[in-house]
Amino acid sequence: MKLPSEFDRIARYFRPLARPEARNLADDAAVIPPLPGRELVISTDVMNEGVHFLPGTPAGLLARKLMRVNLSDLAAMGAEPFGYLLTLAVPGPTPDAWFAGFAQGLAEEQARFGLRLLGGDSTSTSQDISLGLTVLGTTPICGAIGRDGARPGDGLWVSGTLGDAALGLAAKRGRLPDPDGVLVARYDLPTPRLGLADGLASAAIDISDGILADLAHICRASNVGARVDRGLLPLSAPGRAAGPAWRDLALTGGDDYELLMAVPAPAEAALRDRAKVLNVTVTRIGEIIAGTPEIYEGTAVLEPLGFSHF
Amino acid sequence: MKLPSEFDRIARYFRPLARPEARNLADDAAVIPPLPGRELVISTDVMNEGVHFLPGTPAGLLARKLMRVNLSDLAAMGAEPFGYLLTLAVPGPTPDAWFAGFAQGLAEEQARFGLRLLGGDSTSTSQDISLGLTVLGTTPICGAIGRDGARPGDGLWVSGTLGDAALGLAAKRGRLPDPDGVLVARYDLPTPRLGLADGLASAAIDISDGILADLAHICRASNVGARVDRGLLPLSAPGRAAGPAWRDLALTGGDDYELLMAVPAPAEAALRDRAKVLNVTVTRIGEIIAGTPEIYEGTAVLEPLGFSHF
Repeated sequence: MKLPSEFDRIARYFRPLARPEARNLADDAAVIPPLPGRELVISTDVMNEGVHFLPGTPAGLLARKLMRVNLSDLAAMGAEPFGYLLTLAVPGPTPDAWFAGFAQGLAEEQARFGLRLLGGDSTSTSQDISLGLTVLGTTPICGAIGRDGARPGDGLWVSGTLGDAALGLAAKRGRLPDPDGVLVARYDLPTPRLGLADGLASAAIDISDGILADLAHICRASNVGARVDRGLLPLSAPGRAAGPAWRDLALTGGDDYELLMAVPAPAEAALRDRAKVLNVTVTRIGEIIAGTPEIYEGTAVLEPLGFSHF
Repeated sequence: MKLPSEFDRIARYFRPLARPEARNLADDAAVIPPLPGRELVISTDVMNEGVHFLPGTPAGLLARKLMRVNLSDLAAMGAEPFGYLLTLAVPGPTPDAWFAGFAQGLAEEQARFGLRLLGGDSTSTSQDISLGLTVLGTTPICGAIGRDGARPGDGLWVSGTLGDAALGLAAKRGRLPDPDGVLVARYDLPTPRLGLADGLASAAIDISDGILADLAHICRASNVGARVDRGLLPLSAPGRAAGPAWRDLALTGGDDYELLMAVPAPAEAALRDRAKVLNVTVTRIGEIIAGTPEIYEGTAVLEPLGFSHF
């Protein structure tokens, strides 16, 4: 009994990536038994050709970025990776090598971050590649971090450095030099800050729309204000070298996938210590204040400009 | 503090659809507490413009079909609907009315089938609409129906009638008359057969690739053969009227989303009874037999031709 190539491909490239709960990718759905003492955290993110990535991006890189962008949502929730479902829509004539490269990228990230495939859907499109991933993680009961827990007096912390991904995109487009490829690498392959905020942050978000836009989400959800100091924003060496004309990208540039965290004063030292263990820098850039959900620098109100798809 | 229109739209159209676990769609992820005595069933399906639906299809109809196609996977697993995540990728200039219509379609189906929104991602594409839904359902512990449980002697049953959706697509393309719109309606809006197979079927699958292709999945997963009688395939009145040239679509036409079930002899009467309560017809079209995973009609082997995306 001969199988059409769609099922061949699933068997060859994706079945080796699957968790037992995926039932060998041979059922209509995965079945997850109760996880005692844990809550399930679930999120989904899409990447579309021409919008989230440039045509011609290697399949393995797409797979790795798609995985990391989704894992970043788990990091913001303080969750531990468990598994994922994948939707893959590519033009009909896509060659086998593309699928092999995509699966190889997934395999690398699965091993690195400790999760496995649960299921998915493989279809065709008339033209552009469209990729979707639904990621599942777990937290202790009531251990998930929201955006609504920030309280006046909490310190505002960010991981890593800001603006690099936006500079990397500019470099990819030839508008900026990037001799050692550091900036492009930051755009191509963000690092989800898993394990950093768990149990310490009162609120957290991963910076995908720009720090001002994402801080605004926390302020609105928590019904608090924030005070930040632009001079404290952590910049990378190539970020500083890009000069003042590019400096605002640290405030408004998306795609860094660093964590922005509100951290109660008693937990700030523990955050520093944990960051050292995880080998990531953390920087205090301001604090949460009482009042309406506005972001201040001194007495000036900053507009939370960021990326919107519409 | 003004919000960009992407967040406006989420607040206006999608927040009213959300479950409490969705955290008001204001966090990076939904959080699902343990569900005592239940297992979680999770599946994902995509619909792309130009492949799964024709350009210009009304937004509300797309939403309803997307929901039903995913619910059909829960029906095949014997699961009860719980919630869903949605990914919506549309061209940048898409008007507000499109989102309003889409949300209205979701609202109707939520009410009909008893599930609510858990989260999602709203993005843009350069050209075609791409829709994704990840559906979550629950079953009793070990209550999920797989494809691998069919045993020799089980009856092979199908719900509803076969081939109508494929005829409906032909009618939409003007290749077939459909004066009262019955066939087109079957293509546009399948009915997930929720509650039909639970606790009765030893194996089940929803027919999305054609009954032969989907029966082949059960045979391979269960390592059994099957015997079917084409003369027993349930056809609708317009399906019969379409004439013999179209008759094979009942075997190979996709998109009916009827259930194909293997049912142990002692449960066959209960299936008939339950079908009456649910107001759906069920038809015995053959049985599971011992041996290699082949499908026989008499002594002839039927090739499991069906739809493949590649």
